[in-house]
Amino acid sequence: MQRQLIVGIMGGGAADKALLDKAFHLGRLIAENNWILLNGGRDAGIMGASARGAAEHGGMIIGILPGDTLAGASPYLTIPVRTGMGNARNCINVLSSDIIVAYPGGAGTLSEIALALKHNKPVITLGFSLPDLPGLHLNRDRLFSTQTPESAIEIIKDQAF
Amino acid sequence: MQRQLIVGIMGGGAADKALLDKAFHLGRLIAENNWILLNGGRDAGIMGASARGAAEHGGMIIGILPGDTLAGASPYLTIPVRTGMGNARNCINVLSSDIIVAYPGGAGTLSEIALALKHNKPVITLGFSLPDLPGLHLNRDRLFSTQTPESAIEIIKDQAF
Amino acid sequence: MQRQLIVGIMGGGAADKALLDKAFHLGRLIAENNWILLNGGRDAGIMGASARGAAEHGGMIIGILPGDTLAGASPYLTIPVRTGMGNARNCINVLSSDIIVAYPGGAGTLSEIALALKHNKPVITLGFSLPDLPGLHLNRDRLFSTQTPESAIEIIKDQAF
Amino acid sequence: MQRQLIVGIMGGGAADKALLDKAFHLGRLIAENNWILLNGGRDAGIMGASARGAAEHGGMIIGILPGDTLAGASPYLTIPVRTGMGNARNCINVLSSDIIVAYPGGAGTLSEIALALKHNKPVITLGFSLPDLPGLHLNRDRLFSTQTPESAIEIIKDQAF
Repeated sequence: MQRQLIVGIMGGGAADKALLDKAFHLGRLIAENNWILLNGGRDAGIMGASARGAAEHGGMIIGILPGDTLAGASPYLTIPVRTGMGNARNCINVLSSDIIVAYPGGAGTLSEIALALKHNKPVITLGFSLPDLPGLHLNRDRLFSTQTPESAIEIIKDQAF
Repeated sequence: MQRQLIVGIMGGGAADKALLDKAFHLGRLIAENNWILLNGGRDAGIMGASARGAAEHGGMIIGILPGDTLAGASPYLTIPVRTGMGNARNCINVLSSDIIVAYPGGAGTLSEIALALKHNKPVITLGFSLPDLPGLHLNRDRLFSTQTPESAIEIIKDQAF
Repeated sequence: MQRQLIVGIMGGGAADKALLDKAFHLGRLIAENNWILLNGGRDAGIMGASARGAAEHGGMIIGILPGDTLAGASPYLTIPVRTGMGNARNCINVLSSDIIVAYPGGAGTLSEIALALKHNKPVITLGFSLPDLPGLHLNRDRLFSTQTPESAIEIIKDQAF
Repeated sequence: MQRQLIVGIMGGGAADKALLDKAFHLGRLIAENNWILLNGGRDAGIMGASARGAAEHGGMIIGILPGDTLAGASPYLTIPVRTGMGNARNCINVLSSDIIVAYPGGAGTLSEIALALKHNKPVITLGFSLPDLPGLHLNRDRLFSTQTPESAIEIIKDQAF
């Protein structure tokens, strides 16, 4: 791949300190690999922590914001994309990432995992795994689960190149 | 509620005959209750069968199409809404429904269930139920599960008025 | 055309009484022709007046709302489509209309006229006409201008069937 | 402004050589000012030429693509944002730019100028000017017209900081 890889990080707008530290650390590792970090852009939870981790290590961060202004945006974004589309922007998050790492979160994160599988994007769940869901057939061929940012980086290297 | 209730039906673009019959039947019951049926508009699976069931019993059907033309649209739609937005239209499906019935499906259906819970819309899963998902906190207060179109109608009457 | 024609009415969120009366009247005529009226859904200006005109004469009105709830919606909508997409919904307005009538308005109305011409939809400007714009090549083949709701109806009959 | 300014370049998907040269040159000047270039991302016309001009002078280019894949994308994009939303992405183009330069184009370009004025973004038309439009009230306070990329840069410096 000529251009830089875009790694999407999804996850809750609220998270405990251990998760935030892991998100910060993954942001750092993405920056150190010279990849671009994409997330939902808000100054909250996994989004905010991963953006800061990348920014403080020289990385580039693109935030796909739900609002039409910078209100609520992380100050660490290189490029704040203002969509004005609310959660419909979740679809853009997924389509614009070459590979996705999902941290624990809520319904928004679940919608992004689902949309990623729908569009056949590789998804790495970090710290949890998505069980088989009766009645909902998912193509799990590109679904991975791991426990640490370091192992997520290894999976990214395997899957995205 | 002064205006007619809008019931969203989600579910797979491919489904076996037993499911299609159930979707047709739910479309019929929605029409007979003088409610409006909303779905993803395509001439396929749960969408197509539910639209036909409503149309053949005098109902009104609004289809929120992924494409920007009528290509692939069910011929039974009263109002084909052409979004040109692909799966980002899933968010519109959910926001524009007052209550949602989800049939078995795939990743698209899962994304709609997730977005509905995110927006605090009542969701009835028909023929399956969504288990607790480790790492993904969902507000399940308005999540219901049932087996038949008739019982789905009863839940709609309870929840939507 | 088997299904009912969908006529989009665009125009300002604020308008003087003479324009509002004309918009109300066009809504009435659309209803009396058994067509569906589509507009931007808000309880304001041309949107609000045209919806009321159609509703008071038995018509069906679909409102494509910018917000994700019913806040600010006209009470006369048969189907309030809640997009949560702000002005990106202007594109849906245009794609989902079979033909468009534009009343005087502002920048939002101009964006809809432009998007309609982009998608090769017939556009009737009512009470004004769009001049040639130096530097901006528009396909004007399907652009019409007229002065009265009655003559707009005649153009619709010519163009849409 | 702490972060880098984002300058949106709009204009036709087809253009003659003189215009393409001007778009290439503006892309270069944006890169040399260490600003970020945003455009519609396609490998065509003003989009393609401005992206190449910025890329060949070390700039960063964000392309807001209408499609959901890289098909048709300029090879010079740093960040290809895949929206899958067709022309609804025009609204994102405008919202995500801090200031906009519009080259001659067609209906899509006109829709972007209109949406920019709607959202009160500064717009510089380069090589043409938008006349007063009877019946369409536009807030022209932030609308500028100029003839050369160099003078556009001066207006950007005046308006955006």
